[in-house]
Amino acid sequence: MSRQTKFIPVREHLLKVQPCKHGGLVKKTSQQYGIPESQLLDASASLNPYGTPFDHPYTGLDMDNILHTALKRMGQYPDNRYLEFRDAAARFIGKGMTAENIIPGNGSSEIIRLVAETVIEKEDIVLIPSPTFSEYEQQCSIFGAEVRYIEQEMLPDVPVEILKGARLLFVCNPNNPTGRLFCREELEALIDKCRDNNVVLFVDEAFIELADPSQTIVDLVEANDHLFIQRSLTKAFAIPGIRMGFGVASVKIATLLNNARLSWNLGCVAEEVSTVLMNMEGGCYSRYLVESREMISREREFLMQKLERRGFKPLESTVNFIYVDISDLSMDSTELTERMSAHGVLIRDCSSFQDIGKHHIRIAVRTREENERIMDCIRQVIQEWGREQAILYLERNLAKAREKGPLGSNRECNYYPCHFEGQDCTFCFCPFYPCQDERTDGKWITGSSGNDVWSCLECRLVHESNVIEKMLSVLTAEGCTEEGLKKAWSKVMEPILCSSR
Amino acid sequence: MSRQTKFIPVREHLLKVQPCKHGGLVKKTSQQYGIPESQLLDASASLNPYGTPFDHPYTGLDMDNILHTALKRMGQYPDNRYLEFRDAAARFIGKGMTAENIIPGNGSSEIIRLVAETVIEKEDIVLIPSPTFSEYEQQCSIFGAEVRYIEQEMLPDVPVEILKGARLLFVCNPNNPTGRLFCREELEALIDKCRDNNVVLFVDEAFIELADPSQTIVDLVEANDHLFIQRSLTKAFAIPGIRMGFGVASVKIATLLNNARLSWNLGCVAEEVSTVLMNMEGGCYSRYLVESREMISREREFLMQKLERRGFKPLESTVNFIYVDISDLSMDSTELTERMSAHGVLIRDCSSFQDIGKHHIRIAVRTREENERIMDCIRQVIQEWGREQAILYLERNLAKAREKGPLGSNRECNYYPCHFEGQDCTFCFCPFYPCQDERTDGKWITGSSGNDVWSCLECRLVHESNVIEKMLSVLTAEGCTEEGLKKAWSKVMEPILCSSR
Repeated sequence: MSRQTKFIPVREHLLKVQPCKHGGLVKKTSQQYGIPESQLLDASASLNPYGTPFDHPYTGLDMDNILHTALKRMGQYPDNRYLEFRDAAARFIGKGMTAENIIPGNGSSEIIRLVAETVIEKEDIVLIPSPTFSEYEQQCSIFGAEVRYIEQEMLPDVPVEILKGARLLFVCNPNNPTGRLFCREELEALIDKCRDNNVVLFVDEAFIELADPSQTIVDLVEANDHLFIQRSLTKAFAIPGIRMGFGVASVKIATLLNNARLSWNLGCVAEEVSTVLMNMEGGCYSRYLVESREMISREREFLMQKLERRGFKPLESTVNFIYVDISDLSMDSTELTERMSAHGVLIRDCSSFQDIGKHHIRIAVRTREENERIMDCIRQVIQEWGREQAILYLERNLAKAREKGPLGSNRECNYYPCHFEGQDCTFCFCPFYPCQDERTDGKWITGSSGNDVWSCLECRLVHESNVIEKMLSVLTAEGCTEEGLKKAWSKVMEPILCSSR
Repeated sequence: MSRQTKFIPVREHLLKVQPCKHGGLVKKTSQQYGIPESQLLDASASLNPYGTPFDHPYTGLDMDNILHTALKRMGQYPDNRYLEFRDAAARFIGKGMTAENIIPGNGSSEIIRLVAETVIEKEDIVLIPSPTFSEYEQQCSIFGAEVRYIEQEMLPDVPVEILKGARLLFVCNPNNPTGRLFCREELEALIDKCRDNNVVLFVDEAFIELADPSQTIVDLVEANDHLFIQRSLTKAFAIPGIRMGFGVASVKIATLLNNARLSWNLGCVAEEVSTVLMNMEGGCYSRYLVESREMISREREFLMQKLERRGFKPLESTVNFIYVDISDLSMDSTELTERMSAHGVLIRDCSSFQDIGKHHIRIAVRTREENERIMDCIRQVIQEWGREQAILYLERNLAKAREKGPLGSNRECNYYPCHFEGQDCTFCFCPFYPCQDERTDGKWITGSSGNDVWSCLECRLVHESNVIEKMLSVLTAEGCTEEGLKKAWSKVMEPILCSSR
């Protein structure tokens, strides 16, 4: 049996493959924090905030009817040619495409996988501009590729020296998570360069319906066997529970991929629902999708302003999500994301994207009400975190002060003197903030985001040595807990506020 | 651009891959023959003939309710851990399996593909016992394997010399299309031999619920990383339009395969429906599945007898389909299958299985009424074909006879003299059969299958020279058409039958 212990039943490189991290972990978050799914707000998955087409009576679409039609075929294997689906997809994307150009996918991820399966020989070099959708690396790694990251900024003018010898280049347009969209003209030179260097170019247009569908390059596939396009229906129609997407390639390549794809990869429900949705009058320019884009544009603007006012650096976006640089916040992206989850708001921690550190989050653009909830949650989490940091700081300072008495002024602090020259900094953060007691000379002001904020700029209390000595005595006896702080307030602060002030 | 013409964007071996042939082509047949789908009887796909669980009120299952629950999650990405599904699957198969042993599949075909993807390095040798399910070869070829066929009869005792050096061996149990089931004990030695020779053994138990689930070997995976099992829900629950299946492996292997499988491969409908079905009380021994097996056994017996009486050689089966040797029929399997399709009954032409010639069909065991329709259709098609052959033969003989007059006796024929010594064989087959006119001395008899058959044994008319001369004269003038034959009947036969007889 010594043989058995050494035997690896799968291809060796798969031992290193880990599951791909994604947003949209609604059920998991619900279980983890004990919040009912219906109370969670998911801004971590980037779905059309305008709702599904079934939410809008003018579409005339009725889910029950569609299901009824689909389920009539429940007792049959799907027709693996998927003629209606492919025909609908071709008309949906327009530009002269036909059913023969279309490869149906069980979600657009299956199209990425299909291309990885059929294009990659083990150890082939695959170029992926970072940061971008993680499934490219995942799928290519599963099939033994050597993944090389290049910078997003290198697009669209990837130098020939970098392209040479690569088998496959992925371009996500618009890019997830950065939201940047290249227009057709910007990609032309890259397309030529890939063809001239025998690099397969995979362009992921999963979000293009929510940005600007006129920038699609699907019409270039017929003359170019080096070009594969992927489209998704999940995002545009906001129904990721029903898996549906498709690939677009030249008839020659599409035929090969259709031969190689999994038989019956779409069940009757996905087939019927997606066919009906793609057949909506106007295709990518249906009233539903036009109004979706208008709403996204309006709400993205609102959210951008709020994020900027909060002190974040959101990147200009063309689509229904915003990539936000939070490096000015002292909390990292994982901490912020987890704390927001605990409050029922899911955003995407971008640290699981490729080695980009913990300073970026992706926020989906949602409805006005939801966007306000997202911003409220961010404010609440930052406040909470601030309070916790204050307690930690306090505990550290208390420990020191118990030995040496009040710590005096911290003249090395960048913010000294935040209240008055000569202030004692033992209580750097006030442990009572926001006490909301105007006898302290604190007061309500209007913050930069338009909200009411408690300002304690005029309060000197916790920086005065006599007050600090009394508080140290109480907190040393009672401990630095909620309870201890309450006692300190009643034994030290109340007498001062009642008498002298 | 000369470079472009030589460039192959996919892995070169894929250029040879053709789509896999399967039964169940209901829509295609409907389009081809202009028969509404509802009027087709599909005995080419092998689904549980007892109907779906939703057809039996005692199950208490209501499809509308299930869909309603599923669609509540339409707006979320599926939870890619699929905990409920995997838990239900583990309980369904029993034998101490847990959710950690389960890999969800978008149909069982995806499990075959997943194993091919994760196990096969290009040019690995894969052993497939023939005849068997075509997807093994298809999926392994897609991933560049060298497929070697061995004979089904070699199972279960595959010689070590054949196993050595192979990467993967497929065993379909019960086997599609032959219907043979190995019991657990019969597979034990093979399992050991595979492990000892570092061959991964893939056992496809897609039909085991409809044969004998107690023979499953799922419980052997935990101690054996060489063993992968595949289960399907499509066949047992008769809902192939909703794609659902799963793999079973040791926790270690199942974890690897779950990391490597496509994200969100089950949509919310497939996930919910399959979870509910597997959770039916009793699992593989639910009332629904027990009654299914009873019905299949009963109807299989009925169909076997009918097929034998028809002169076919059906193979003993354990499951809901029968592999039938039709080599005694002068029509081949493709001809029979196509002609039956034209009459609205689909059976499986086995010529697309591996190089086994055109002498086998697979017929699904259906309900009594449907089984009778299948047999009726076979009878009708054979009769039709016989008539057509007669016309062809007649045309050939007429052409000769126009030159030389009646052809006289064909003493070289194995059946000579079929009517009387000295008979003229110009009309070998009677062009009027079955005239159903008792004045000819023909009569109705009871055939071997219990049906009424028109016997013309006692009729001498078309073998008498004077009759033949008259018929030749009419048919030469009128042509050998339906119309010509009608005239020949009225001008030649009627006068004879009215006068002398």
